[in-house]
Amino acid sequence: MLERYLPILQWLRTYNKGTLTNDMVAALIVTIMLIPQSLAYALLAGLPAEVGLYASILPLVAYAIFGTSRTLSVGPVAVVSLMTAAAVGNLALQGTAEYLTAAIALAFISGLMLILMGVLRLGMLANFLSHPVISGFITASGIIIAASQVKHIFGVDASGHNLLELVISIAEHADQLHWPTLIIGVSATAFLFWVRKNLKPLLIKSGMSPRIAEVVAKAGPVAAVATTTLVTFAFSLDQGGVRVVGEVPTGLPDFALPSFDTDLWQQLFVSALLISIVGFVESVSVAQTLASKRRQRIDPSQELIGLGTSNVASAVSGGFPVTGGFSRSVVNFDAGAETPAAGAFTAVGIALATIFLTPLLYFLPKATLAATIIVAVLSLVDLGALKRTWQYSRPDFVAMAATILLTLVSGVEAGIVAGVSLSILLYLHRTSMPHSAVVGRVPGTQHFRNIERHDVETCLDVMSLRIDESLYFANARYLEDRVYELVSRNDCVKDFILMCPAINLIDASALESLEAINLRLKDSGVRFHLSEVKGPVMDRLKRSHFLDELTGQVFLSQNDAWETLKSVEECPSMRANT
Amino acid sequence: MLERYLPILQWLRTYNKGTLTNDMVAALIVTIMLIPQSLAYALLAGLPAEVGLYASILPLVAYAIFGTSRTLSVGPVAVVSLMTAAAVGNLALQGTAEYLTAAIALAFISGLMLILMGVLRLGMLANFLSHPVISGFITASGIIIAASQVKHIFGVDASGHNLLELVISIAEHADQLHWPTLIIGVSATAFLFWVRKNLKPLLIKSGMSPRIAEVVAKAGPVAAVATTTLVTFAFSLDQGGVRVVGEVPTGLPDFALPSFDTDLWQQLFVSALLISIVGFVESVSVAQTLASKRRQRIDPSQELIGLGTSNVASAVSGGFPVTGGFSRSVVNFDAGAETPAAGAFTAVGIALATIFLTPLLYFLPKATLAATIIVAVLSLVDLGALKRTWQYSRPDFVAMAATILLTLVSGVEAGIVAGVSLSILLYLHRTSMPHSAVVGRVPGTQHFRNIERHDVETCLDVMSLRIDESLYFANARYLEDRVYELVSRNDCVKDFILMCPAINLIDASALESLEAINLRLKDSGVRFHLSEVKGPVMDRLKRSHFLDELTGQVFLSQNDAWETLKSVEECPSMRANT
Repeated sequence: MLERYLPILQWLRTYNKGTLTNDMVAALIVTIMLIPQSLAYALLAGLPAEVGLYASILPLVAYAIFGTSRTLSVGPVAVVSLMTAAAVGNLALQGTAEYLTAAIALAFISGLMLILMGVLRLGMLANFLSHPVISGFITASGIIIAASQVKHIFGVDASGHNLLELVISIAEHADQLHWPTLIIGVSATAFLFWVRKNLKPLLIKSGMSPRIAEVVAKAGPVAAVATTTLVTFAFSLDQGGVRVVGEVPTGLPDFALPSFDTDLWQQLFVSALLISIVGFVESVSVAQTLASKRRQRIDPSQELIGLGTSNVASAVSGGFPVTGGFSRSVVNFDAGAETPAAGAFTAVGIALATIFLTPLLYFLPKATLAATIIVAVLSLVDLGALKRTWQYSRPDFVAMAATILLTLVSGVEAGIVAGVSLSILLYLHRTSMPHSAVVGRVPGTQHFRNIERHDVETCLDVMSLRIDESLYFANARYLEDRVYELVSRNDCVKDFILMCPAINLIDASALESLEAINLRLKDSGVRFHLSEVKGPVMDRLKRSHFLDELTGQVFLSQNDAWETLKSVEECPSMRANT
Repeated sequence: MLERYLPILQWLRTYNKGTLTNDMVAALIVTIMLIPQSLAYALLAGLPAEVGLYASILPLVAYAIFGTSRTLSVGPVAVVSLMTAAAVGNLALQGTAEYLTAAIALAFISGLMLILMGVLRLGMLANFLSHPVISGFITASGIIIAASQVKHIFGVDASGHNLLELVISIAEHADQLHWPTLIIGVSATAFLFWVRKNLKPLLIKSGMSPRIAEVVAKAGPVAAVATTTLVTFAFSLDQGGVRVVGEVPTGLPDFALPSFDTDLWQQLFVSALLISIVGFVESVSVAQTLASKRRQRIDPSQELIGLGTSNVASAVSGGFPVTGGFSRSVVNFDAGAETPAAGAFTAVGIALATIFLTPLLYFLPKATLAATIIVAVLSLVDLGALKRTWQYSRPDFVAMAATILLTLVSGVEAGIVAGVSLSILLYLHRTSMPHSAVVGRVPGTQHFRNIERHDVETCLDVMSLRIDESLYFANARYLEDRVYELVSRNDCVKDFILMCPAINLIDASALESLEAINLRLKDSGVRFHLSEVKGPVMDRLKRSHFLDELTGQVFLSQNDAWETLKSVEECPSMRANT
């Protein structure tokens, strides 16, 4: 029991020198990657650079204690940072103390929600985010994030809450275009794209081992940060108008309780819920992918607690919302991390950087951070998914396209809420007119098939309908309509059999419909029978009065029903086209 | 085509003298019933009495032309009148011109929505109202309506937006209690209850034919109206403080277009949508019940148009929202109505009443109208349904109880919105952890059964899982969890078979999950197979790349899969408890 809530107890027991070495190496590589990322994502969230560092220390320690994934790397990530900016931007101006207070409170509330969901085992809430919605949302977020960083590359003061506003605002401020900034930004972007695409193969070709080549390639952003910082310092470009990160407080963050202002909590409630769910879904899918590669297991409920404590830890140490990031976790895994201790060692690395490296960050151009963000998020944009989804399923395509469109036009929260609502409605619509078939017996067998597709025996006074879907409120009325239509078109029907092998559930609405069908068929002089009812469905029906009132019988097999009910007169083999 | 949109063309062709007589008799009886009802429901909606009469003329004619039910009686009904009061009460004070304008606009908007839904064949929207929600909503509405009428019986000035406020307000105004009003109100209520319960059997016992006894019993409210009006007139009780209907304009309503104020339309939009859907659901279920008794059919889409034109007709002739009423339709049916012409004749009856009878209504006590409302709506209250639903299905019970509670506490609109949302969430939750079973072969057969329930053959390196539900976003993640858990617990598994006979749909999220399962099992060295995939599901899978990437095969039958994959070593018959 204790081990379930404290997974650290499981892996600490078998911890040894070999594991330690592997974890240390992985931690070193992830630290190098995380320093520029944490600064950049703080910038994206509209927060001071040091907040990104603070969010990369304690949360990693908390996850190492409470998380179940061996290799997940927790910390600031792009999509959650964007959602933080959207949520907090509604309440306060960037750069104010209120803005920071709200971002910290957001991490705290989101952390409490995740812990609560974990304790109540409500991870199923994440199920309502269908894949097309989350994929469309991440694509649209990537586009918005990239667009929001273009101003840093151009060195202009653009702003806007959606893609169109951003683009117009950048165009309007085009006269502010700052050439030195643009040169830094464009070179950094081009360099990073080149590194991402070409460096690793090049290094391997020149004789380096693939694993080290991978690590070197991942250090690209650090090289860009170091080079542009040095250039800016050497030529005093900051005095020529290149915007830099500036003074970053040195030393570890202070512990402090977040704001408990109830108004603030109310205003942040929905945003915190959305951030929690999106962050959890992103994180858990990375964790699951990596775990299964080593035949390990993660426990989604305990993951909620792990991520929740990470966010609470972030909030009490001056950080903003965090979750498990995709790219860093993959690097952590590939670098050989074996236990969550790697995360704790990364935290030590970031803490050392916070103490010793922050003075060096003064001359880091914001354009370089913007370049690292753009290169990172454009890999999230997957417009090809739209085409694949279109080919596979139209309703899913509609949900995905709506999510992308609304996220771009109205913002992240509107986008995700619309996507979730639409995918639920479309699912209900899809099941509201289930496939059904009037069936007859394939001559000489006990099989019953659609009379429209097969040459089958039918009998004028017995009609059999097979429904290929569970019966519940969204399709209960359709079932009634279908049955009445069939019976009113066939005057000589005396027995009506509903064939139920595909019915996994009959809810109270559907039960009412079955009762109504039974009564109305009785009024029309037709007996109502069921066949092939599944065990659990039958158990439930027995708890109602339906079976007592049923005018017909419940048959174990459709063939029994047919043999019992078919008239003695000849039942011709026919091909109907009803 | 023309006949589909103008059902009158179907029945008018065969109209003859016999039909005419029957329709006339039914119309006479319904008219007698409708006069007090239309006055009472206008009072309930907070409108002047004559508005109830106006809503009972043109709408009936419109339905006779466009409706598909032969016997539905359209006009003011209790629940829709309550919803009208709730919607309009938010925007204007009762008794003001704005209040009337808003009520008329509400009928117009609701009418347009219904027509649009009919033309677009969107009747499926009504499917989202599950039976427990609608039943709970009607019960709660009945309780609220009855409580809201108690003040008229007591002769006090109470008001309130929910049950508690109403009760407290009545208690606070108890000192206003007006004895003559109370005596009239209580006697009328007692009389009407007695008539409803005892008059018909009494009349039959005394030798009257059951059909005539039925009609006489239905005239109870008219008798109450006539008697109390006469008493009030004779003793000038109105001057002693008994509130009466007062001056009612004589003559037919004027035609006028409703308000086209866009602000008003926006404010009424959601209310109009809820009224449309609730009205439609109530009406169509009555119409269907009655139609099936004579093996007739109604067309739900055309019903939307019929009800829509009725509401538009109501609005242009100064009326408020209408729909098909349960009790009047049953009376119309029992009285022998054969075609919608009976409705048109009823309209003539009400028109005549509007011209000739309105002066007589001056002395009609409001307490009498309140009594007719109370007696009518208490028959809608069905608390027994709570118990039946509890026995059959807990999730449906939760949706029903929440609907009742929220309707009583927060009002009709909050109640219905919460009920619908909750029933959708609960359904998704129910299907998010579908029943599944690891299966093995029953020795000597080709049947595969749950290894936990049956003695079956299994094979250590082949595992088969049967899922008894369609796969979609709400359960896709659960499927992944289930598969990974099974595989990570059984190290020697080499082949994993997903048995799909109960899967009617695999949406894009579930496809992603299957792809993830395939890849992750591949990483663990396990091949992934499918068996017994249904035709339409297979067709859809062929449109994706999944089948190309599948590490295993798709087998037509589970037995084929088993025979192909089981190892040559002995597969023992076992009873596992995994």
